[in-house]
Amino acid sequence: MRKHLSPFQLRELIRSGEWRAPTTGVASGYVQANLVMLPREEAFHFLLFCVRNSRPCPILDVLEPGRAEPRIAPGADIRTDLPRYRVFEKGELRGEVEDVRDLFNEGTVSFLLGCSFSFENALLAAGIPVRNIEEEKNVSMYITNRSCVPAGPFSAPLVVSMRPMKPEEAVRASQITTRFHLTHGAPIHLGDPEQIGIKDLDRPDFGDPVTVKPDEIPVFWACGVTSQLAAVSAQLPLVITHAPGHMFVSDLKDEEMTLF
Amino acid sequence: MRKHLSPFQLRELIRSGEWRAPTTGVASGYVQANLVMLPREEAFHFLLFCVRNSRPCPILDVLEPGRAEPRIAPGADIRTDLPRYRVFEKGELRGEVEDVRDLFNEGTVSFLLGCSFSFENALLAAGIPVRNIEEEKNVSMYITNRSCVPAGPFSAPLVVSMRPMKPEEAVRASQITTRFHLTHGAPIHLGDPEQIGIKDLDRPDFGDPVTVKPDEIPVFWACGVTSQLAAVSAQLPLVITHAPGHMFVSDLKDEEMTLF
Repeated sequence: MRKHLSPFQLRELIRSGEWRAPTTGVASGYVQANLVMLPREEAFHFLLFCVRNSRPCPILDVLEPGRAEPRIAPGADIRTDLPRYRVFEKGELRGEVEDVRDLFNEGTVSFLLGCSFSFENALLAAGIPVRNIEEEKNVSMYITNRSCVPAGPFSAPLVVSMRPMKPEEAVRASQITTRFHLTHGAPIHLGDPEQIGIKDLDRPDFGDPVTVKPDEIPVFWACGVTSQLAAVSAQLPLVITHAPGHMFVSDLKDEEMTLF
Repeated sequence: MRKHLSPFQLRELIRSGEWRAPTTGVASGYVQANLVMLPREEAFHFLLFCVRNSRPCPILDVLEPGRAEPRIAPGADIRTDLPRYRVFEKGELRGEVEDVRDLFNEGTVSFLLGCSFSFENALLAAGIPVRNIEEEKNVSMYITNRSCVPAGPFSAPLVVSMRPMKPEEAVRASQITTRFHLTHGAPIHLGDPEQIGIKDLDRPDFGDPVTVKPDEIPVFWACGVTSQLAAVSAQLPLVITHAPGHMFVSDLKDEEMTLF
């Protein structure tokens, strides 16, 4: 039932207050997006940060100042159609809210960035295990020792998500995710976690640990959390993001944003 | 000799005034770029235009306001290292100059966008004819009936370049250019020119006509001239671009910017 809601139906439920849960597994096959909202004065530099770091921050849509209707979901309202938002003031989390109409103004620029839900469906369809889905956990995410290319006041370490699989599955997963360049593309690393500064796979910086079987290796993809760290890094008066797992669900189908 | 100049050597010749010719075929194997310079006030919207129209306007590098050294060519100076520039005032071409130091200021933002020279080398390496090179002409370019997605004051029709080849070569060329997503990627059309609003292949809007043999079809790629039309469309007080064929030659190798 949840799985078969259309994006429009889901957004209507959210807007009317009937849906406040995470969007994981809902409206299956449609592209979900990370949200970052910030003032127009810094919009150029944040857009530049995303362009310079397109693997962790692939741009699905950018709304011009004061605009609330994404091109990837005509009729939607970015101020009301996510189940939960996070509000940051001067780099500090101030709280979570269910509606940001009172915080939004003519200078607010909204960025929608790709997330990994899209390629997870493609991996499953190819028979490749997605352990976090099997174990009903949030994907394991880690802060690496690699720095993103900064832009203006924005900087961040590269954050990665990890999925364990057999080596031959890692090759196939690399092929498959290459097509999904707007949801992080191919892996950025596989094997030894220490090579990218990860000390302990069992202690992710975000999300939950998952089981890695003896014949498996960890495979790492750039992760959208990077964009949130970057947005908050500038310590702007106000930054709004989605709350973790509470994404914007667009009308784009996963297959519509593949490269080939 | 020209072909084997390094990008650094070529830029030194240009900067010292010893080279004012087009850059076609020079420093073979290195990425050449379209240049657009405009004021910081409109930099967000122009960057957004490029993001929204990434096939004709693939972003190789964007320099922050007042910066003259591209990341894709350390030590270079974007104000002096192109052989010829075009200067537009309020949308009108005012002339061509060999140096823009006196027009550049702390608010100038420079955009470097991919051009098709990179994938032409890859086509040649695969034995696919590149007629404009064979006939020593400028590639044929046409204004289509397709509109780019506008952003702020920037809008433009999609401009395409055309290369004639046999149908099976068109398939192979589609595969090859898919890898080059930062130099326009795969073709946007092949076959009947009228489907994209081109009335007469023998009368290109830019560049020269080339021979189309009886067993060949025209194959169309998005073209960087689109970005120049867009930059000029906003009728800003000052816009600077490269002069046609007089590109910025970077230190990036063609193969370094392929997707896979």
